[in-house]
Formats: sequence, structure tokens, C-alpha cells
Amino acid sequence: MKYCAECGNKVTKKVPENDTVLRFVCESCNKIHYQNPTVIAGCIAEWQGKVLLCQRAIAPHIGSWTLPAGFMEYDEAIEQAAVREAYEETGAKISIDSLYAVFHVEQMNQVYIIYRGTLDSPEYHAGIESLDVKLFDPADIPWDQLFYPAIRDILQRFKMDLERGISSVYSGSAVHGKVMVVDRNFTS
Amino acid sequence: MKYCAECGNKVTKKVPENDTVLRFVCESCNKIHYQNPTVIAGCIAEWQGKVLLCQRAIAPHIGSWTLPAGFMEYDEAIEQAAVREAYEETGAKISIDSLYAVFHVEQMNQVYIIYRGTLDSPEYHAGIESLDVKLFDPADIPWDQLFYPAIRDILQRFKMDLERGISSVYSGSAVHGKVMVVDRNFTS
Repeated sequence: MKYCAECGNKVTKKVPENDTVLRFVCESCNKIHYQNPTVIAGCIAEWQGKVLLCQRAIAPHIGSWTLPAGFMEYDEAIEQAAVREAYEETGAKISIDSLYAVFHVEQMNQVYIIYRGTLDSPEYHAGIESLDVKLFDPADIPWDQLFYPAIRDILQRFKMDLERGISSVYSGSAVHGKVMVVDRNFTS
Repeated sequence: MKYCAECGNKVTKKVPENDTVLRFVCESCNKIHYQNPTVIAGCIAEWQGKVLLCQRAIAPHIGSWTLPAGFMEYDEAIEQAAVREAYEETGAKISIDSLYAVFHVEQMNQVYIIYRGTLDSPEYHAGIESLDVKLFDPADIPWDQLFYPAIRDILQRFKMDLERGISSVYSGSAVHGKVMVVDRNFTS
């Protein structure tokens, strides 16, 4: 950030009065430009025991596989964002079943909110941001082609949950690719 | 937003190529200025069966009671943000126990992430943003002085959970003050 979005003058970085954080401040119009983490909404969407993954067609990490997920927009619910991202990236219509994971990726300043969901039908196709879309048996997830460590971690937890017949909610922070779990809430 | 934060020229509102949403775009440097919901982190912090509330000293709704909560910043975990906000608003040092609620307030474009936690000791005092801070027995929560309907709703769910001896995770959207519950995960 170099210029004030309100008045167009140059911003400076300083700690505003009654604050403790360095921020971009406009000394012409006194606007403080707060910067806040963004929310990524996504879904582990299943169809008859298989999970829907998409292969990235856009930077970064073209060719890697991941969960359908993306930036939550203004004027939509978190669940709506997860459903919309799934449709845009995989062509699949999904329904949200439950909250699955809430975690923070510090180096990206992103908060991930991941749900579990179900495909409404086994129809899907690669959207403009995907090279390929596939339903994977959890045993066949291409672990070495998942670029994002936190997504790999969450998918590993999901596979373990299935094997153990439990349902959890995970929350914490992704540190060196592992989601540090603050709490686990089991339902049978 | 009137000016481009990167080059200082005027922005216009249009739908960028391969997009479907009206956005602020700079036609001088081609920067697209995305606007995303912000995250509010907060905590239902308890001490010996009582819950810590603070009375707002700042606009909006000065004098109303609420949970300690506020904007998550860059470079902090969600749980850290909840602990920091509790300290700033109530002077209390708290520890996070578990995730409690994840919901979206559409008219504010805010995502609330609320934890349950415990005061490290029964020490607290009104911070600069609070008129007063108190531990309330759940039966004595000043319901008619809680301005934010979604906070009232979550505190009512919390009180019900205590009465029923259950522990839940709520997620959904705050619509007309009620958090529409997508899922409930019980732990005993």
C-alpha cells in the first residue's frame, strides 16, 4: 500500500494514537488503513465414500491437487462461499453437512474454514481454474502431489477419522504444515 | 474506495475479465482491489461457572454489554487474537479451551470465531474500550443490555448447553439476530 484509497495522497507507516500496531495511515485525511486476514472457505465433498479434489490450473503450484476452496466474498455466507468455490473449480453441486476445520496459515494471513459436504450428484468437470477434477478413494489420494501442507494435514486427519469411524472439528494454526490442534470434538 | 492504493490514480467499478463480481479496478496499473470479510475473534471466558462480559465504552452502542471480541490482525493466530482482545477489553488473562461458534454477520461482512476459555485468575479491569467488566452468573446475564443479537443468541445457546451439560460447536449465519445452525457437534 502506497496511496490512501480515500483521498489519493501518500500513506505513511506509523502507530496510531491508542494503538500498538504499525499501520498505513494517511496524514492528509487521517484515514487508518487496517489490514486484516482473509477467509478461505472450502469443502471436503464426498460421493459414495470418495472425496472430490481438483488439480490447479493457475499459479501458484500449477498441477498440484487440492481441495476446492477460495476467498470468501462480501455478501455471502461462509457456507455459500464453500459451495460456490466447489462449483467454480469442480463443476460439482454440493451440499454442506458440517463444519470440519478452522485454522490459520500465518505466512499467508489466511483463515481457512473447511466444511464436510456431499455432492448432489456424481457430476463434475474442471472449471476454468482447474486442469482436472476427480473423486478419489481416500486410500488413493495423491499425497505427494498435494502442495499445500495444511490441506494435506487436514485430508490425513479426515482419512484417519473415516478409518476410526469418528467425526471431528479441528481448530488451530498451520505451523510448518501441521495444523496444531487446540481442540477435538468427537461425535460418533 | 476512490483511489488505487498502489499507484494513486482513480479506481473504477467493473467486473474484471474471468470474474463475475463488480470490483474496484485501477485502469492505470490494472490492480484489482478485492474486498473480503474480516474476522472477529472472541471468547466466552469463564471463572468458576461465571462468564466474563464487558460494557462498551466506544461507539457503536456505548453502554451495552458484550463478549470480549475484536478484529483479528495480521501475524497472529485466531486464538491469539481472542486472548489479546480479552486482555485489551477486560484486563483478564485467559486461556483458550475449545472452538465454540463460527458464524457470519452478513450486514457487517464479518466472520465471528468464538472460543470457550478460562480466566487464568479472577483478575480483570475495564480496558480503554470498556466502561465496566464483570463476571456474570449465566442466570444474571443482562440480556436486554446485550446490543448485538448474534452475541445474545450465542450466549443463550451457551447457557442452554450448560443447563443440559453438553458442549457444542455452532456454525452458520446470523440472520435477524439468530445464528442459523448448520451443524451441532455434541460432546459430553
